[in-house]
Amino acid sequence: MGEELGASEVEMLSAFVTGFETACRVGYGLGEAVTARGWHGTGVFGRLGAAAAAAALLKLDTEATLHALGAAATQTSGLTASFGTMAKPFHAGKAAMDGVLAGQLAAGGFHATVDLLEPAGGLERAVLQDGSVHIKPADFSGWEILNNSFKPYAACHLTHPAVDAGRQIGKSGFDPTGVRAVRAHVGELAKQITGGKSGAPESALEGKFDLKFCVALALHGHNLSAADFREPLRHDAGVFETARKVTVEAKPDLTFTSARLEVELDNGRIVTADIPVAKGHPGNPMTWNDMRDKFKGLVESRLGKRSNSLFEQLREFGNGKALAAIRAVSRAA
Amino acid sequence: MGEELGASEVEMLSAFVTGFETACRVGYGLGEAVTARGWHGTGVFGRLGAAAAAAALLKLDTEATLHALGAAATQTSGLTASFGTMAKPFHAGKAAMDGVLAGQLAAGGFHATVDLLEPAGGLERAVLQDGSVHIKPADFSGWEILNNSFKPYAACHLTHPAVDAGRQIGKSGFDPTGVRAVRAHVGELAKQITGGKSGAPESALEGKFDLKFCVALALHGHNLSAADFREPLRHDAGVFETARKVTVEAKPDLTFTSARLEVELDNGRIVTADIPVAKGHPGNPMTWNDMRDKFKGLVESRLGKRSNSLFEQLREFGNGKALAAIRAVSRAA
Repeated sequence: MGEELGASEVEMLSAFVTGFETACRVGYGLGEAVTARGWHGTGVFGRLGAAAAAAALLKLDTEATLHALGAAATQTSGLTASFGTMAKPFHAGKAAMDGVLAGQLAAGGFHATVDLLEPAGGLERAVLQDGSVHIKPADFSGWEILNNSFKPYAACHLTHPAVDAGRQIGKSGFDPTGVRAVRAHVGELAKQITGGKSGAPESALEGKFDLKFCVALALHGHNLSAADFREPLRHDAGVFETARKVTVEAKPDLTFTSARLEVELDNGRIVTADIPVAKGHPGNPMTWNDMRDKFKGLVESRLGKRSNSLFEQLREFGNGKALAAIRAVSRAA
Repeated sequence: MGEELGASEVEMLSAFVTGFETACRVGYGLGEAVTARGWHGTGVFGRLGAAAAAAALLKLDTEATLHALGAAATQTSGLTASFGTMAKPFHAGKAAMDGVLAGQLAAGGFHATVDLLEPAGGLERAVLQDGSVHIKPADFSGWEILNNSFKPYAACHLTHPAVDAGRQIGKSGFDPTGVRAVRAHVGELAKQITGGKSGAPESALEGKFDLKFCVALALHGHNLSAADFREPLRHDAGVFETARKVTVEAKPDLTFTSARLEVELDNGRIVTADIPVAKGHPGNPMTWNDMRDKFKGLVESRLGKRSNSLFEQLREFGNGKALAAIRAVSRAA
């Protein structure tokens, strides 16, 4: 959209930050609440962020921006029951598409309800029906984008703390064939969304949402990059065997970012790992090198040696030269 | 979509009926329940109907059709809090658009969750969160399209029974300037969605959802056609004066289709009207002549004398010649 409108890199970055901050302000503290009620936070709050970003790129005035946000809110969608299928990543793309549409509609004079996002407004009533949690009045202090989490693993974010624990235990020297039982203690939402799966996913997409399978991969020394979740899903029988030994329990002191793992070995020894803050969250951030590794894991099979230079250009986005360089790499691909 | 695919008129009609029956089967008896929880039934069930129609036109097999329905279900959207703005009719168009997209995605191999529509499935859990009402196992007997309701008035369907009552009282000879008070007794949902408005709408769109205003129009002899809801909204001061005298009360014996009106005159006389089944519902259907009148009210300002012939062609849709005739009229417009 930025390219179509001839926006500068700085304008695009500014629009992105506008969208990010808007989504965070409306959704602050509500991610787990909407997820527990069957709605994907990306589809609820991401759509609003996309509309805010579109409004910024379109340079809408205050009133039109309110209509864009209203048009986006009334398109709220994305069921958590779709997790583990192609529909989950589709939620993110569709949220972006609907947000752009909302901005374009508002630019054309579309009128929506402008108080849908208010505490106790139409969005909250429909998505958080029991009225026990509420959209908070917006707090405009600080920058939420500085508190963003990144995902080091190509699996559901809720699996990350337990995967960190599994990787800590599964590092070099550990023999996963000597495992008798694995007890994963996780937060309530991680249990609800990812804990009840079989441990024997039939597709990579299912595997990303199967905590038992993800923990087993980690114990077997995998880094859970995109390469571990290619279709068709193929892994050593040992991974699936370990996954069968995993039990998942929710603990009230654990959250979205924390987990504990107890691995009982055949010789009776117990190995434990305690992850208070999973890698990628504020307090335990990914470094630029971690980012580069993830990026390369995603694009290197396609871009080869150009992966590094593309990463460097993306990192400098906003200097006015990055977009042309990115286009050149994309064309060559 | 049918034209793009080169479908015959019979195939298009068949796809339409497929979509209609699908939406009704899933949503049977749940229209008021989803509305009361903040979701527009058109956005919830209409989207599934559109996907089913698209699947029929695309001749998808059973499995792909399930994925199309899943892709549509996870796009469920449309907030009732948008009623009274452009976003409400937008819900219908967006449901159609998303349903077509769902069909096209499934045709391309997209995989969604295929049990979202089941009783207690992901859609029901997200939209009917208190678990007090459920999607019913599909009943495939009969044709729901034969039980369809049509709207004779260009206002919210929930206003129709009270408008019928107002028109019964307001027919020729009635003097609305002699009205002291108007008591509208309606169903709970009509009260909730349309009863709490001011009676003094600032736009035609607001007016369509304002029961007091709609009843006043009826008492003043208007037929509530599209012409009564043109922007900017202009009506005699008397209509707004009467609207101010209307009070709305929900009665447990009244439903979506029924209403009672008590008009108290300045001379103390009380005139009443009791509508058990509003015009347009099964049991009190619109005739073809009623349909023609509504159609002409919508298109005559644009199509003039061609309105009649277009109506006749639409009525014969399926004979294989209607589409060409409709195209000819559209081109000439």
